[in-house]
Amino acid sequence: MTPTASAPPPALPEGGLRVTALGGIGEVGRNMTVFEHEGKLLIVDCGVLFPEDDSPGVDLILPDFGAIENRLDDVEAVVLTHGHEDHIGAVPFLLRLRPDLPVVGSKFTLALLAAKCKEHRQDPVLIEVAEGQHSKHGVFDLEFFAVNHSIPDALAVAIRTSAGVVLHTGDIKLDQLPLDGRLTDLAGFSRLGDEGVDLFLVDSTNAEVPGFVTPEREIGPVLDRVIGKATQRLIVACFASHVHRVQQVLDVAETHGRKVCFVGRSMVRNMGIANDLGILRVPPGLLVELDEALAMPEHLVLFVSTGSQGEPLSALSRMARGEHKQIRIRAGDTVVLASSLIPGNETAVFGVVNGLVRLGADVVHQGGAKVHVSGHASAGELLYLYNAVRPSNVMPVHGEWRHLRANAELARLTGVAAERVVIAEDGVVVDLVDGIAKVTGRVEVGHVYVDGLSVGDVGESTLSDRLVLGEGGFISITVAVEAATGRAVSSPTISGRGFSDDPKALDDVVPLVEMELARTESEGIADTHRIAQAVRRVVGKWVADKYRRRPMIVPNVLPVSS
Amino acid sequence: MTPTASAPPPALPEGGLRVTALGGIGEVGRNMTVFEHEGKLLIVDCGVLFPEDDSPGVDLILPDFGAIENRLDDVEAVVLTHGHEDHIGAVPFLLRLRPDLPVVGSKFTLALLAAKCKEHRQDPVLIEVAEGQHSKHGVFDLEFFAVNHSIPDALAVAIRTSAGVVLHTGDIKLDQLPLDGRLTDLAGFSRLGDEGVDLFLVDSTNAEVPGFVTPEREIGPVLDRVIGKATQRLIVACFASHVHRVQQVLDVAETHGRKVCFVGRSMVRNMGIANDLGILRVPPGLLVELDEALAMPEHLVLFVSTGSQGEPLSALSRMARGEHKQIRIRAGDTVVLASSLIPGNETAVFGVVNGLVRLGADVVHQGGAKVHVSGHASAGELLYLYNAVRPSNVMPVHGEWRHLRANAELARLTGVAAERVVIAEDGVVVDLVDGIAKVTGRVEVGHVYVDGLSVGDVGESTLSDRLVLGEGGFISITVAVEAATGRAVSSPTISGRGFSDDPKALDDVVPLVEMELARTESEGIADTHRIAQAVRRVVGKWVADKYRRRPMIVPNVLPVSS
Repeated sequence: MTPTASAPPPALPEGGLRVTALGGIGEVGRNMTVFEHEGKLLIVDCGVLFPEDDSPGVDLILPDFGAIENRLDDVEAVVLTHGHEDHIGAVPFLLRLRPDLPVVGSKFTLALLAAKCKEHRQDPVLIEVAEGQHSKHGVFDLEFFAVNHSIPDALAVAIRTSAGVVLHTGDIKLDQLPLDGRLTDLAGFSRLGDEGVDLFLVDSTNAEVPGFVTPEREIGPVLDRVIGKATQRLIVACFASHVHRVQQVLDVAETHGRKVCFVGRSMVRNMGIANDLGILRVPPGLLVELDEALAMPEHLVLFVSTGSQGEPLSALSRMARGEHKQIRIRAGDTVVLASSLIPGNETAVFGVVNGLVRLGADVVHQGGAKVHVSGHASAGELLYLYNAVRPSNVMPVHGEWRHLRANAELARLTGVAAERVVIAEDGVVVDLVDGIAKVTGRVEVGHVYVDGLSVGDVGESTLSDRLVLGEGGFISITVAVEAATGRAVSSPTISGRGFSDDPKALDDVVPLVEMELARTESEGIADTHRIAQAVRRVVGKWVADKYRRRPMIVPNVLPVSS
Repeated sequence: MTPTASAPPPALPEGGLRVTALGGIGEVGRNMTVFEHEGKLLIVDCGVLFPEDDSPGVDLILPDFGAIENRLDDVEAVVLTHGHEDHIGAVPFLLRLRPDLPVVGSKFTLALLAAKCKEHRQDPVLIEVAEGQHSKHGVFDLEFFAVNHSIPDALAVAIRTSAGVVLHTGDIKLDQLPLDGRLTDLAGFSRLGDEGVDLFLVDSTNAEVPGFVTPEREIGPVLDRVIGKATQRLIVACFASHVHRVQQVLDVAETHGRKVCFVGRSMVRNMGIANDLGILRVPPGLLVELDEALAMPEHLVLFVSTGSQGEPLSALSRMARGEHKQIRIRAGDTVVLASSLIPGNETAVFGVVNGLVRLGADVVHQGGAKVHVSGHASAGELLYLYNAVRPSNVMPVHGEWRHLRANAELARLTGVAAERVVIAEDGVVVDLVDGIAKVTGRVEVGHVYVDGLSVGDVGESTLSDRLVLGEGGFISITVAVEAATGRAVSSPTISGRGFSDDPKALDDVVPLVEMELARTESEGIADTHRIAQAVRRVVGKWVADKYRRRPMIVPNVLPVSS
């Protein structure tokens, strides 16, 4: 089951289709799948991954474009299934390499992408499509299907080539009572299944979760109860792209006579776009600007805010720390986190909850009330998908290993032959030839880090240094030596950062280094690298013995000519 | 509700009882509560907190003994409610300050403490007690009650003084069918309630969780199913102090004809102690040593291992990474995580799960099977406690703010007057005077960090440096200047660690610094601190403009006399 392929794949047989994920399989984030047929490429999604503890200081992680960077002219199009960051966030970085790459997606998806590209000063070629439509890009014949997810206007895409029919769900769930009435097109999937689906790429995120996702509309009454009870300040935090969630908040706010104020740059921007496109219905006069909201009686306003993941710089985090300039949380205020708890963010989110509770706020979150439902199909829904599509081959996508494996098991339960369920991971090459999908090789994919303004210059060596520095700080030893002889011409200067608060902690180091310098001089060592090595060794041993710690030891040996 | 007291408390009125938590309230970990009466002190628990992201490189966090360090001779005893690290782990550090401090606890608790103290080369004064017993320590008259928790031999303690009766639950749940038949003594609590409990300190950990904790014994049949199905290698990971969980694993292993091998230093040690004390019943011949286990056919052995929290150095993590020397996980092996997922450890634990699944193992964890139950009372059980004890005053302990507040609400629901429910946090002083508990002040408590061999020298300044270094690395600029004039006598040496993998990333810095040194020299600046400041400023500005990053800038300006 584990993809053991480690060598590059052989040439793709004529008429075959090659599928390679450059991101998104074996992880949740930076989704990007490349389809190859008759020498041409089609990309589905191009998103970012948000870094965790093992990549400190990094802003974003991109898919590794390395495998296709010499073939960008062969790319017919990039298809975006929906507008979440983990599906569109890396597009501007891809467009830097080929600005005229056509980008295909639904109206709302493209509107979000356009706003993002504008910040990057890019003007991409956009091709708008909708469910039920077909579009042809070279050898790739596409058909789009409506899909329900936690953002409006999501699509699944069928890719027809002479190799067969591929269906990619994108991110999907099967809410049977969606707020906007736009159902996941199970009927369309069934029709495609009748035709025959050769390879089915399926969202794995919730494959481990039994049963079915509660309909989004069941959140409305819960919000109504919580919001109706609030008598003071009221803040609802949720994802900035979850238009239907925000819609429910607006509706409830109106019922209870509260104006609504959007807080957070992405919330203001996205809801503006959704409003312009008619996806968000805003009752006239409901919205107020921040200044206006702050001047109103507290019980007449509802703030809809970002920061639901405990982002330290968000308005909500600042309120929780009592550091927000304009909004001071008082006993009896209400804060609703109408959002999921993305794995890895637990400590940050509960930090915000504890801060708010400490200030006396009533905090309502999914732990205690049904104020959030997932956007991804649970196991029960995935079974419906498999039974509708009846695919010959299955490739679980969008998930960590535990999710992929659980999804594979569901496919098998519905009758897909075990050997026709292909678990891949980033870089693993899957070829569909003569109706059979198989792992045939592996291309190198790494993590590409964005830190500040530059892409890719922060790599594994920098990150491993950061991990060492973050755990133990450093001790630097600076000494000037006579270039010709290696004789120390100054007393060593010792400084430690991130090592100890005790100003005397490094007092032993000067005599220790002086002794070592005397030794190197006596042995006639003048090479500054060798002197530095000797200094590193004695200081490293001293700190390990005395403190049992491992700070980075940084000797600076400066040759001066006298 | 928020304790606003910021000043030290006034003198304790004659006959009053003062309660101050030096750790454990407003956090989960390093529990330590100090009771003061007639000038004497009693300490309940003295544990450690395991650090999170905000204290990088730290091994342990201790309660801050500062508030009592000048009064250690007034301490009558330290009472330990049970043997978990967050209740006993800091005792050796307290004993360093006063080695003859009597330590009171149950047989198993003291056996675990003795093993710990032995590692610290300490020989503490131990006073063994059991449920139903009384012991008197100066002005403090203690009575002990059996309590059910996720470790054997836990106790609640009633503290009688002339100020009234205090009951401290320790960590508690109310399993009504405990494996060892040792129920939480609700009848005893009721009897104490009849007498009148003036202040009730109550475990808050699961106060947000509705309902009741499933009995521990329901895990047995689940383990039986999982273990009975396994046909290859089988590993069960759980907490090293959870004797009853291990007991169930041993029983099931015997049923299915597997020998058992303990893996992990603390597992081997604790189960040895439990076996010696007759708390763990080991069928003769069931246990095998690691060498023996590795030589046996895989389907005849079961490994009981530590590492359930994803600790990177544990045997289980090494197996998941494919780096364990002796145990290679293969497709079809079974790994059971019979443990909770401690908040903050999610990423590490799921990293281990994904690694094992990737290698083909079937991983069973509490997400998909009932292989763990909590050791802390849920809301339903806490209601039973309040209704049995009927306290006049309540003080929620052992929890973050969200837990404390939920627990306070439960107390109020059972009829405790709102103003008699005191939510404190570490350092907040609560005085019980004339039957009324009130916040009267605050003493300073900080975080005391253990890093390697030393205690307390790593403080907030070191940690904030580590956070900066961990996020952005550093750029150091070393230059030798003529002491008298400030003239540079060497070209600047630039080195960056944790900044960039690109060897040319800092190429611009040398000319930049040379220009700045020319400027400082031309202005007659010879003071090395001022030169260093100037260098830090220009390099900091350059890196912010060019990279939009914030590495630490470390100038070393070395005066040489020529």
